[in-house]
Parts: sequence; C-alpha cells; structure tokens
Amino acid sequence: MENYIFGVDIGGTAIKMGLFNIQGELMEDWEILTRREGNGQYILSDIVESLDEKMEQHAIFPSDVAGIGVGVPGPVNIFGTVLGCPNLGWGEFNVAGEFFKMTGIPSLAGNDANVAALGEMWKGGGRGHQNIVMVTLGTGVGGGIIVDGNILPGADGAAGEIGHIFVNRHESECCGCGKHGCLEQYASATGIVRSAVRLLQESEEPSLLRKLENITAKDILDAAKAGDALGKELLEKLGETIGIALSQIACICNPEIFVIGGGVSKAGTILTATIEKYFRQYAFPATAQTAVVLAELGNKAGIYGGAKLFLNADKCKK
Amino acid sequence: MENYIFGVDIGGTAIKMGLFNIQGELMEDWEILTRREGNGQYILSDIVESLDEKMEQHAIFPSDVAGIGVGVPGPVNIFGTVLGCPNLGWGEFNVAGEFFKMTGIPSLAGNDANVAALGEMWKGGGRGHQNIVMVTLGTGVGGGIIVDGNILPGADGAAGEIGHIFVNRHESECCGCGKHGCLEQYASATGIVRSAVRLLQESEEPSLLRKLENITAKDILDAAKAGDALGKELLEKLGETIGIALSQIACICNPEIFVIGGGVSKAGTILTATIEKYFRQYAFPATAQTAVVLAELGNKAGIYGGAKLFLNADKCKK
Repeated sequence: MENYIFGVDIGGTAIKMGLFNIQGELMEDWEILTRREGNGQYILSDIVESLDEKMEQHAIFPSDVAGIGVGVPGPVNIFGTVLGCPNLGWGEFNVAGEFFKMTGIPSLAGNDANVAALGEMWKGGGRGHQNIVMVTLGTGVGGGIIVDGNILPGADGAAGEIGHIFVNRHESECCGCGKHGCLEQYASATGIVRSAVRLLQESEEPSLLRKLENITAKDILDAAKAGDALGKELLEKLGETIGIALSQIACICNPEIFVIGGGVSKAGTILTATIEKYFRQYAFPATAQTAVVLAELGNKAGIYGGAKLFLNADKCKK
Repeated sequence: MENYIFGVDIGGTAIKMGLFNIQGELMEDWEILTRREGNGQYILSDIVESLDEKMEQHAIFPSDVAGIGVGVPGPVNIFGTVLGCPNLGWGEFNVAGEFFKMTGIPSLAGNDANVAALGEMWKGGGRGHQNIVMVTLGTGVGGGIIVDGNILPGADGAAGEIGHIFVNRHESECCGCGKHGCLEQYASATGIVRSAVRLLQESEEPSLLRKLENITAKDILDAAKAGDALGKELLEKLGETIGIALSQIACICNPEIFVIGGGVSKAGTILTATIEKYFRQYAFPATAQTAVVLAELGNKAGIYGGAKLFLNADKCKK
C-alpha cells in the first residue's frame, strides 16, 4: 500500500525532509547538514540514508512510499532536468532519476523557490487558490509562479526569478547575476541593509539605526515599527520597489494572490500592507485588487511543496 | 461528422471569420463590419447570420461543425466569462454560452490578444513551441502568454496585459488605463509618434521627419532604415524600452520565444533585431538566449487562434 510521501528540500546549509501520509498531512519533519565537499557528491546518498533510517523507525517499506518530491537550489527546466546548482557544486543532471535509481521510489524534482511556492499554495498563505505568485525575501530574492495548481518552470527553468526583474537603470553596483539594478539589490535582506547604509550617509536625521554597529534588515524594519523616521522611509521605499515589481508581474500573469515569504517577511503585516499600498497605486486597474499576504509555512514550505509536487503528478496519471 | 471549426475574431471595426477543416487548415476567411450601435446588441446575431450563410454556401450543417472559437476585445477570466468590452458596448456576459444558445454549436471565448498569441504559437512565428509570449504593437500594445500550449488568462482576465507594464516613473501624461508610464505610452504606434514629436522639439538635428506634416510610426521606422539619425535614435529607444520589458517578462514566465506582431512590426527584422539586442543586455543570464521573432499571420492570427482554442479544448475532453 502506497501510504506515504517524502518531501525533501535541499539547501546550501541544511537539507529538510518531511514524511507525509497520502492524505497530505505532515507526520514528522527533520533535517541533516548539507555536505558540499567533493562537488556535492555525497548529498544524494546522505538523503537516501536518512530516508532509509526514517522508514526503518516507522517500519515503512519502500513499496509503501508513493513518491519523493525534491526541491533543489537551481533551475529545473520544463523537462525536469536540473540545470546545475552552483551552491551545491552540481552540474546538469537528473536528480529525480538518480533518486529513483537509488531507492526504487518514483521521484520528481523542482526548483526550491518554485516548490516552496507550491507548498504555500497548498497549505500556506495561498490556500484556496490555484494561481499564485510567491516572492521570497531572504538573503536573496526568489519566487515561484503557480498556474492552475502547478509550477510554471519556464523554458530555461528561470520562471519566477523575481529577484532579477530589472528595476533601476541607475544602479552602479553589480548584482550577483552579473546585471545591474535587479530587484534583489533592493529587496533582499542584504539589499535593505545596503539602502539603509546609503540613506544614513546621505541624511543627517537622527535615527535609532545610528546606534547600531552591524545593522540587519530586522533592525531596520523594527525601527520602522517603532516610528523611527529613517526606518519608516526605508520601509516605504522597500514597499514601493516591491509594489512596482508586483504591478509588473500582475500585467504578465495576473495571479489570484501574492504571497510574501522569506526571513524579511517576519516583519509581518506592516510589510505586506506597505507593499500592497504601492502595488495598488501602480497596478493595471483590472488587477489592482489582488491581495498581498504573508507566507505561513516558514522553512517548511519546501517539504510541503515537495509532497504536493508528487501529489499533483500522481493526480495527472489517473 | 464534425468536420469543421469556425474561428471568429471580434474587433471594434470589423469581425474576421475563418472556416477551418478539422485538420486545422484554413479553407476560407472573410469579414463583416462591427455594428456597435445599441451597445453592440446586434454583433452576435450578425456573426451567426454570416456563419449560417457560409454553411449554406458549402452545404455544411451545424452538426458538421465541431466548435466555434471566438476572440473578444476585452478581458476573459479563468472561468471563461467575458468581463466587458468597452469598445463594443458590452458589459459582463457569457459570449460562448450565447453562441451555443443561438447555433447549437459548442463555443469558447478568449481575449482577442491572447487568442491571437495562441494562433501565432500554432501556425505563426511561435510554431514548434508550447511556451511563447506574444507582444502586439498596434494602436495600443497588447499581448498574450501561452503556457504549455494554452492561454494563460489570469485571475481577472488580465494576464498578458503587456502594454500596461510600468516602465517610466517620470511620465506626466496619462495612459488610456488611467496610470502613468505604461509600456503602451512608448511602444504603441501612437507612443512612437509621441516620442518622435518630443525628440524633434528637443533636438536641432536635421531629419527626414521634419519634412512630414503628420508623422506616423511607419515614417519613423522608415527613416531609421534610411539611416536618418533621429529615426535611428528613436528606433534604439523603442528597442531598449521593449527589450527591458521583455527582460522582466522573461524573469517571470521565461518563455521559449518572443513573437512580435501588430502594425508596428511591419518594420520587420530591423525592429526585432534592435529589441533582441537590448533584451540580451538586460536579461537575467539564464534567459538571455530567448529569440525575438516576427509574427507571421498578420490579422489572421485571431481566427487561427479561435480554431486552436477549440482544438485544445477538444483534446482535453478526450
């Protein structure tokens, strides 16, 4: 009896795993460290070993597992091929096929941000919708586009690369991708700090932020909440930059809802309300009522999405 | 025997119709004028009358027709409801259902720009691809997003509203949609002329364009082809504006190919090459090789797309 599904979320530091029953309920989740040495050659076998242990603990046989859904930190194209994960040392290869070879369990892979978006649609902030756009504001800015309940992967696995939407012609510093003026340069945790440092240098206004040695994005958003003028100015700029990007996204794929996740989103509804305010200002009128909400699954979005990746595919087969 | 399909493209001035065989070959196409009086209440009956005549000419019975696919100049949501067509005087109603009531033939409706994109994917510039983005540069700027061979309609029927991507914070004039700084304000035929008038006023440089009384977009692109310095400058600006918008689109849905249509695209490959040059410059590296090609079906894209709309739906049923 195929009663279980595994969701696996491979990150640069840790690999999160979840055991789900076939009804889609998370029964247990755990994580292991990501061994990146040797071009990431131990990663898959470490995962398989951990899944084997978990099956042994629960007296589950591989034949009891319907599938493994995996999120990987790199582009995955419309044919399911992982095009390389620089963070892990991986080149182009078929992760799902390798898992199947090693475990005998049917496997599917998707880009981690896309898979997390699928998880949020299924059980998180996008619950009840089939067409969502998720934006992840973390160390970088990622995203995922869900159309009719499925991931939109894109021809080169680059759909949902929301962090690299071009937003500023006048940026002199370089983005990690090699371009200048990407959304990520302003809306990632690092980008928010960079904007704060610039503003603190340009302005003479007193601010809570001046007392801190190493400012973090959290400090800045906390200052905004505390009514600090520069903190509020930074929050408004952040909300405007993201709001404009969402208005552009809405003209292209017009989702039912926007879901905002990642570490920066811990600031809460003050952030989503500010983004929503500017989104409405810049949005094409027919799309302007689209809500902007917080993600709800935190760092478990990826394992939920992994399980859903498999449930979606299984539904198609029937 | 269901041997035929009708494709219908309802425009503000004319309604184009095509009779296709079930293999998808266009057997005949024709058009009638759009009677907009009385809030467009005669439009559907005019179409049905014209289709009836055509069936009589060819001795085709309604039972020989597999379906009617219709493009309408307004948003159509994910449930197939037409949300209103101001150009025709129509409010919200179910065009496909009305056609079915009037003819007994199964009918489907989509937004005209989206349906044209579907046609171009099927038999035009996007042939051989399943994921394309079409941009129509005409009196306005429209577009359509095709994902896995089907139209992406969007929650409010506003997916593919490429003309309303926000591209300029510093625009003082208002777009038709009520916002400021939409792509359409620079990349439509009207927008191109507006940019030319501005540039001719600002610059003292001699130009072929100064001799013309009523400059058209065609004059400007012809001047660029003839080597006129101001014409070339306008073409470069146009290519950059559109290229940046395509780079943003690529970060969101990462199509296999971009197809450029509409009256302005009659300028030919000088236009697509210029757009492609700037697209590559601004694109997220993983997407930068996406080709920018010309549409091929001209004003027949809509009737082809109408037929395909029906063929796609029919495939799903089987």
